[in-house]
Amino acid sequence: MSETTPHRLRILLVGARGTLGKAVANELGKRHDIIKAGRGTGDLKLNLTDPAGMVAAMAEMGPVDAVICAAGEVAFAPLAQIRPATISESVYALGLTNKLLGQVNLALAAREVLRDGGSITLTGGILSEHPIVSGSSASMVNGALEGFVRGAAVEMPRGIRINLVSPSVLAESMDAYGPFFRGFEPVPAARVALAFSRSVEGPQTGQVYRVV
Amino acid sequence: MSETTPHRLRILLVGARGTLGKAVANELGKRHDIIKAGRGTGDLKLNLTDPAGMVAAMAEMGPVDAVICAAGEVAFAPLAQIRPATISESVYALGLTNKLLGQVNLALAAREVLRDGGSITLTGGILSEHPIVSGSSASMVNGALEGFVRGAAVEMPRGIRINLVSPSVLAESMDAYGPFFRGFEPVPAARVALAFSRSVEGPQTGQVYRVV
Repeated sequence: MSETTPHRLRILLVGARGTLGKAVANELGKRHDIIKAGRGTGDLKLNLTDPAGMVAAMAEMGPVDAVICAAGEVAFAPLAQIRPATISESVYALGLTNKLLGQVNLALAAREVLRDGGSITLTGGILSEHPIVSGSSASMVNGALEGFVRGAAVEMPRGIRINLVSPSVLAESMDAYGPFFRGFEPVPAARVALAFSRSVEGPQTGQVYRVV
Repeated sequence: MSETTPHRLRILLVGARGTLGKAVANELGKRHDIIKAGRGTGDLKLNLTDPAGMVAAMAEMGPVDAVICAAGEVAFAPLAQIRPATISESVYALGLTNKLLGQVNLALAAREVLRDGGSITLTGGILSEHPIVSGSSASMVNGALEGFVRGAAVEMPRGIRINLVSPSVLAESMDAYGPFFRGFEPVPAARVALAFSRSVEGPQTGQVYRVV
């Protein structure tokens, strides 16, 4: 524990309008200042698939203590419908460019705006370990994010930390996703938000916080 | 175990000329027929980054019992030199298009030529779990491959299996890679080849065989 009283942090939260983002804002907003970012709305306009725009928006925002991403899209499709293709024509393109490279680029850009000892927290998911039908892209991307945070953690400058939160299906999403996740125990977004708190307010780096 | 005597298998081996590929050919070639494939030489010309050419070459080859990949490139670069970029300009492009999507496309194409109950075996690596400096792309790609085989395994048709072999640094590669892998216990390629044998000749699917 720090020898000083924990201070109020300035936190960039990407995907603040989503189910998970709202829960993270509720949890961390109790004691910190949240800059809410999203594609169309929020304090900051930020698109995961536009790295140059992302860098510019973050430079304008100024220094922060934490960068969180609770956004990222992948395609769900039966494997039988997925054919060999170059990356631009592949079913896997959305996941690789949006949820994976979008979050990776956010982490890379975050180095420029994070204060010493700041943190980056990205979002993966349970499908890396426990597959579902039509989920091969999500399994791939979530596995990639686990590898990336482990790899990037050992090279972050100035004590910057990076972790991944890997939740099971959200209780709030069961109306939409329930049929794909039969038998999975849903987790309330508020529980997943605690893992983001651990990443931001704890001391660890290179971790995958599984919330199941 | 099968009730019949194990029969001679017809196996496509991509990357047959590499250090690992040669060891796999030695191990499985003792009792099976190996079709050696590579970019420039071999029984079959096959380029991981050319999905259409891959599909055509495999169609010409005809039915096989196993498809193995012991090839795949990633870029090694200090994280400090990696900037946010779109996929086509990213340092991560090589790993994502070659070692990841190249092997994924090979697996997708393999469905068309594998006999019922055949197998696909891809190659990942230890960096998904144990990072090294300059290895964030390899960590990402190897993690993605672990997720993909788990995800794809549950959707493969006709009893086709898919596994990943994830080796530590090869003993034969220590002259070149040793300085990056200080303290890692090198594994002889012949030991790693046993994991390919387990995948091809065993009953499992969706597995990551770690050889450390």
